[in-house]
Amino acid sequence: MFESNIRPIQWTGNHVKLIDQTVIPYEYKTVDIKTCREMADAIKDMIVRGAPAIGVSGAFGVAMGAKEFLDSKDSEEFLQRLELMAEYLKSTRPTAVNLMWAVDKQVNLAKSLNCSISEITRKLEENALKMLEDDIETNKKIGEHGAEIVAQGAAILTHCNAGALATAGYGTALGVIRSAYARDKSIKVFADETRPRQQGARLTAWELVNDGIPTTLITDGMCGYFMKQGMIDVVVVGGDRIALNGDTANKIGTYTVALAAKAHNIPFYVAAPYSSIDNSIETGENIPIEERNHEEVTYINDRSICPEGVNIINPAFDVTPAQYITGVITETGIYAPSELKQAVLSGV
Amino acid sequence: MFESNIRPIQWTGNHVKLIDQTVIPYEYKTVDIKTCREMADAIKDMIVRGAPAIGVSGAFGVAMGAKEFLDSKDSEEFLQRLELMAEYLKSTRPTAVNLMWAVDKQVNLAKSLNCSISEITRKLEENALKMLEDDIETNKKIGEHGAEIVAQGAAILTHCNAGALATAGYGTALGVIRSAYARDKSIKVFADETRPRQQGARLTAWELVNDGIPTTLITDGMCGYFMKQGMIDVVVVGGDRIALNGDTANKIGTYTVALAAKAHNIPFYVAAPYSSIDNSIETGENIPIEERNHEEVTYINDRSICPEGVNIINPAFDVTPAQYITGVITETGIYAPSELKQAVLSGV
Repeated sequence: MFESNIRPIQWTGNHVKLIDQTVIPYEYKTVDIKTCREMADAIKDMIVRGAPAIGVSGAFGVAMGAKEFLDSKDSEEFLQRLELMAEYLKSTRPTAVNLMWAVDKQVNLAKSLNCSISEITRKLEENALKMLEDDIETNKKIGEHGAEIVAQGAAILTHCNAGALATAGYGTALGVIRSAYARDKSIKVFADETRPRQQGARLTAWELVNDGIPTTLITDGMCGYFMKQGMIDVVVVGGDRIALNGDTANKIGTYTVALAAKAHNIPFYVAAPYSSIDNSIETGENIPIEERNHEEVTYINDRSICPEGVNIINPAFDVTPAQYITGVITETGIYAPSELKQAVLSGV
Repeated sequence: MFESNIRPIQWTGNHVKLIDQTVIPYEYKTVDIKTCREMADAIKDMIVRGAPAIGVSGAFGVAMGAKEFLDSKDSEEFLQRLELMAEYLKSTRPTAVNLMWAVDKQVNLAKSLNCSISEITRKLEENALKMLEDDIETNKKIGEHGAEIVAQGAAILTHCNAGALATAGYGTALGVIRSAYARDKSIKVFADETRPRQQGARLTAWELVNDGIPTTLITDGMCGYFMKQGMIDVVVVGGDRIALNGDTANKIGTYTVALAAKAHNIPFYVAAPYSSIDNSIETGENIPIEERNHEEVTYINDRSICPEGVNIINPAFDVTPAQYITGVITETGIYAPSELKQAVLSGV
């Protein structure tokens, strides 16, 4: 096991400290998040991002919200306020399903408990902490399963950041890379820059350089070139929402990489926990795609990169159909997309 | 015919004025180029770029060099110095073949003339001016032929800048777009940003916004998404060097776009003059790929976008195999890649 000590979400005992992911690698700082609304804003502004990380953050958001509602006149009012706030939290990022999963889990826990409001509040805090610890364990299991598909000395291409920063710790796609590197120091990584927000250049490169894993940063358009040169052996990315048929929403640009991988017969894996699988939808066509603000495309580091007057469309995610996915690496093993539904529904 | 008044290369009568393409759209300024060496540096530093534009610039470089060599003791020394300088000019950008074509054309003209050194010098200047005018005419013909393949109301995706700025004027791929727009005001353009140097965001968007042609700027990784959404009808790009079998070197990222177009059955066209066809090579495997400095990837607008310690490989071009190319749009018509060799060798 290759340890990473990056912990993007820390609980101090009464509030959350988030690593501010909007300023890495220029600066390393944490932000104190003391209320549910501050957490919603932090998720929306991508101070914390990554499907599993915003799930755990949402769970802490609910726990902090519960404390704010301790003055409710009875548990009915308390639960009403909690549910309203949960809806608001869930609305901040519509594509990743982990946020909905984690927030709903907290609300359902609150509703199921037959005890005092303050006792419920304590349990919600305990549960958020457990979800944080569980996520790290889950990622380590994903890493161990995923390492099996990385051949000796392989070059792994990844897109965006599905690392320790995108989770409670260790990472999903980068968890696979960390576990593979622990076994074989000759593997290497190609990291897509991942415009518009450059999570690959800023976050993935930062994580992997810190861990000493050899990493080449490439622009998003270069993936086809390096694949044709025979320089990429396998692609591993994260997943923000996976439909039961295996269709996977992930950071914009992932689908283009998948098309290039298919054209070169390069295996393409999604690494994600069960909480990224939305068992309410059959195919990716039902996954809502978040549209983010235009300045993400037109500005880099506060400077405009294009003339005024150009139109922008900024989808934050795309959906890679199951036919382009070799396997989904989960905490219980690796599944072909066609096996996923059975595995999920049978509760493997 | 849709006129563009952008003229990146202007001859004042004794020196060249280049539009400085490294600062558009932030600033519009011209740079005075008074010697052959200054021209070589301007080409290398991409103050002027684009295959046809560096061809014409190289021709003026030779003409200015000839003037610098007027003190040669005889025509033999003059031609020796001219040839040495021509080799240096050609070495500045190894991939685009137009630079070699234009410089060689000048040197061959000088060698063929049986007259005084000063008369040769005058003819070289005249010839450079003729190549400039011819290039604009060629592009207008490319535009007229290319407009035929643009359906009413089509959305055209282009990569990098094959515009007026990349040529003596009007443009190749953007020439097709200009001619199509002159016929049909309902067409629209998707412009790839084109990292690392962002010629799409900076130059193509600037040209098209100036011409009032509706343009949406997208990041390079988004092309697959918009194709899957059915929002792209045709791809038109330029070409820096085309082998006789139709394999085409163009700006890095072009091949990835071509793979995505193929997967969606979207026609993919290369628009380029005959001077971009290298009839000395059969396939794209023989095209040298320029590697440029790493800071193009790691810095945007003078600010680092990634941590220290990450590796960089920065190929400036990639080769799209002929099988992904629907047609090559030239000044004499549109050819399937398989027809190209016959057309070139028969001198159509």
